[in-house]
Amino acid sequence: MSATLSPTPRTRLGRAKERGRTDRDDLYAVLDAGLICHLGVISDGFPMVVPTGYGRLGDTLYLHGSTGARSLRAAAGSPVCVTVTHLDGVVLARSIFHHSVNYRSAMVYGVARLVEDPEERLTGLRVLSEHLAPGQWDAVRKPTAKELAATAVLALSLEEASVKTRQGPPSDDEEDYALPVWAGVLPLRVAWGEPVPDPALPPGVPVPPHVRDR
Amino acid sequence: MSATLSPTPRTRLGRAKERGRTDRDDLYAVLDAGLICHLGVISDGFPMVVPTGYGRLGDTLYLHGSTGARSLRAAAGSPVCVTVTHLDGVVLARSIFHHSVNYRSAMVYGVARLVEDPEERLTGLRVLSEHLAPGQWDAVRKPTAKELAATAVLALSLEEASVKTRQGPPSDDEEDYALPVWAGVLPLRVAWGEPVPDPALPPGVPVPPHVRDR
Repeated sequence: MSATLSPTPRTRLGRAKERGRTDRDDLYAVLDAGLICHLGVISDGFPMVVPTGYGRLGDTLYLHGSTGARSLRAAAGSPVCVTVTHLDGVVLARSIFHHSVNYRSAMVYGVARLVEDPEERLTGLRVLSEHLAPGQWDAVRKPTAKELAATAVLALSLEEASVKTRQGPPSDDEEDYALPVWAGVLPLRVAWGEPVPDPALPPGVPVPPHVRDR
Repeated sequence: MSATLSPTPRTRLGRAKERGRTDRDDLYAVLDAGLICHLGVISDGFPMVVPTGYGRLGDTLYLHGSTGARSLRAAAGSPVCVTVTHLDGVVLARSIFHHSVNYRSAMVYGVARLVEDPEERLTGLRVLSEHLAPGQWDAVRKPTAKELAATAVLALSLEEASVKTRQGPPSDDEEDYALPVWAGVLPLRVAWGEPVPDPALPPGVPVPPHVRDR
């Protein structure tokens, strides 16, 4: 796979081309910085968009869920779209029309493959786990055979993907810059809070470094 | 419309029913607390999930975009799914299997209606604007006829919707509570940063209270 994102009819940006990114590293950066994606599937002829976890290994995205979940059943072997979005701020312009948001977003298109090989299933689950909660795979109880049987793992190639970002101040119409109104960006930040121990935790169990220092 | 969310085949929760919410107020709360949604459409037979702004007026959700946007064209008069998700934390359990996230999520299904009445179009745009940037509609230049002509406004009824949330500590298997591992929640918070003035702003234009105090 090349280091650039080759546009296909779906991923070629129709509008705001200057917001497109073509480096594979940009795609990885957007995906790796996210915690959940929005998985789009077609279920009974209707689009369905479900928030769910994911993980990346090279150019493969892994998704998982209960074998009973409608969205997972609709996704296996079918075309899907996975979108990861970071909202970085609200862009306040001098006109309503040029209001916008600063964001980084990745869209991945493809046919989701149901992973059946036991080794790849375990790899996928580990990748998913380490993405959401790095360090936990080795710290807690591993999945049992029964738990594994209840879990569907899907793989999606990153071959067909696009990245779009907007950053910086508003882009106003030339004549609007003279208007006596404030313009700029109201930034948004996602921050971790202090770990909240499970009330059922026995006294004296310390917060592990990989959680504390995240 | 009743004050409860009446389940349809699509919105009836197949799994984790205890995470379902049936009050219309819960739906409003999730929608009103969000800034962007993920709009799912079917485009050329494929699902497509696009992050975009929205606003709510009563039981109508408004969406908008360039008349040239592929996603908007695919949505007008067609079935769509709009999902709004708040990620509140990562749930660290005593087993990999019970790791989870705390979240609030709303899914709205329906056929998006292209708004053509000029008055409703303006109402929809104002609702969208006030949702993303409250106070700005009255503070900055309003849309021109040309800008309005370049903007598509879509309306989506909130009639068919579901709300799902998870909050609180992990739910571990009974026998795992004895394991000597830390368990709890690592909370996530979205916070506004300090307003960043547009470098092109003339000196002496103050940050307006509706921006400063957000």
